[in-house]
Amino acid sequence: MTTKHSEHIYPVFDRMLQRSDKEKLLKQRAKVIWMTGLSGSGKTTIALGFERLLYNKGFLTQVLDGDNIRSGINSNLGFTEEDRAENIRRIAEISKLFVNCGVITINCFVSPTIAIRENAKQIIGEQDFVEVFVNTPLEICEQRDVKGLYKKARAGEIKNFTGIDAPFEAPVNPDIEIKTENKTIEESVQELADKILPLIQI
Amino acid sequence: MTTKHSEHIYPVFDRMLQRSDKEKLLKQRAKVIWMTGLSGSGKTTIALGFERLLYNKGFLTQVLDGDNIRSGINSNLGFTEEDRAENIRRIAEISKLFVNCGVITINCFVSPTIAIRENAKQIIGEQDFVEVFVNTPLEICEQRDVKGLYKKARAGEIKNFTGIDAPFEAPVNPDIEIKTENKTIEESVQELADKILPLIQI
Repeated sequence: MTTKHSEHIYPVFDRMLQRSDKEKLLKQRAKVIWMTGLSGSGKTTIALGFERLLYNKGFLTQVLDGDNIRSGINSNLGFTEEDRAENIRRIAEISKLFVNCGVITINCFVSPTIAIRENAKQIIGEQDFVEVFVNTPLEICEQRDVKGLYKKARAGEIKNFTGIDAPFEAPVNPDIEIKTENKTIEESVQELADKILPLIQI
Repeated sequence: MTTKHSEHIYPVFDRMLQRSDKEKLLKQRAKVIWMTGLSGSGKTTIALGFERLLYNKGFLTQVLDGDNIRSGINSNLGFTEEDRAENIRRIAEISKLFVNCGVITINCFVSPTIAIRENAKQIIGEQDFVEVFVNTPLEICEQRDVKGLYKKARAGEIKNFTGIDAPFEAPVNPDIEIKTENKTIEESVQELADKILPLIQI
């Protein structure tokens, strides 16, 4: 049976592709793994290791972090309270698109307040949102200071820096907590994998 | 070999996953298929049929259109000139994320001006941007008027409606042109598929 454009412009073919179709194609269940923690806590490091581990098992993932978000879609946002909220809102909406495409999305953002993470969770949907607290003591993050941000914050060159002159509200009841202190990266990645794999395997 | 968090926070494992790794996993080459044309020209109809056709061949796709963009990430944008430009900029940035994840992205937006499409192309990258002109005469789009928008535009209830009181600048040299008049949806979809498949097959 063929359908004339003029007869039916909307109901095409059987039906629109669903997320479940894409998950079936990918042989995985999509989730948004939301990594929260201080700057330097190891969020991106663990995420990239975890992505590699999942890739080796045949999973399709997308890491979202400052590198691909702040330089791209959110390049027109600053660091006012309003812009920070909009930053997270857009990230959550993008994550929702990816998860609806069947892709496991791994987000690495400080996302320092309970309210901001709650907002992300509401947009993404509770059932798809996995909160991971990358718990590294401030002293250790500051010792590492990979990007030199803590030094600048201490010198007053950066204002409202989380952990220094802006609060970090730790998750009260995170789905997963990774304490990185005295662990290798591989151990942290493996700990995350042990908890996430049951959620994404079909 | 294991790596201490404190020693190397950045260079994890072998190296960061690349787009090419994901394309390999998906056994496809990613592209952004940018469908431009009047409201009611058949962009989304063709896109959804095309997505289904690709799915049946094992390709992973993401359709972006007003339904999932205007109601989500771009819900805080209106229809001023500035907001329309920001609308397309964000869509292009999201497309770039998807294409970097190896996903074939099919975008359905009127995107009425050469400048606006050129901007999208610059953000996405020329080599990944496939411009598809869904060419349906205004009279036919207006006859269909699936959403009743042309009627409202004629009645002056909607201002700056493309084709009525705002111009549509047809692509001068589109990569693909689909003339839908006197074609079934299936024929239009097949025509698109014949041209796109060589670009996405590995």
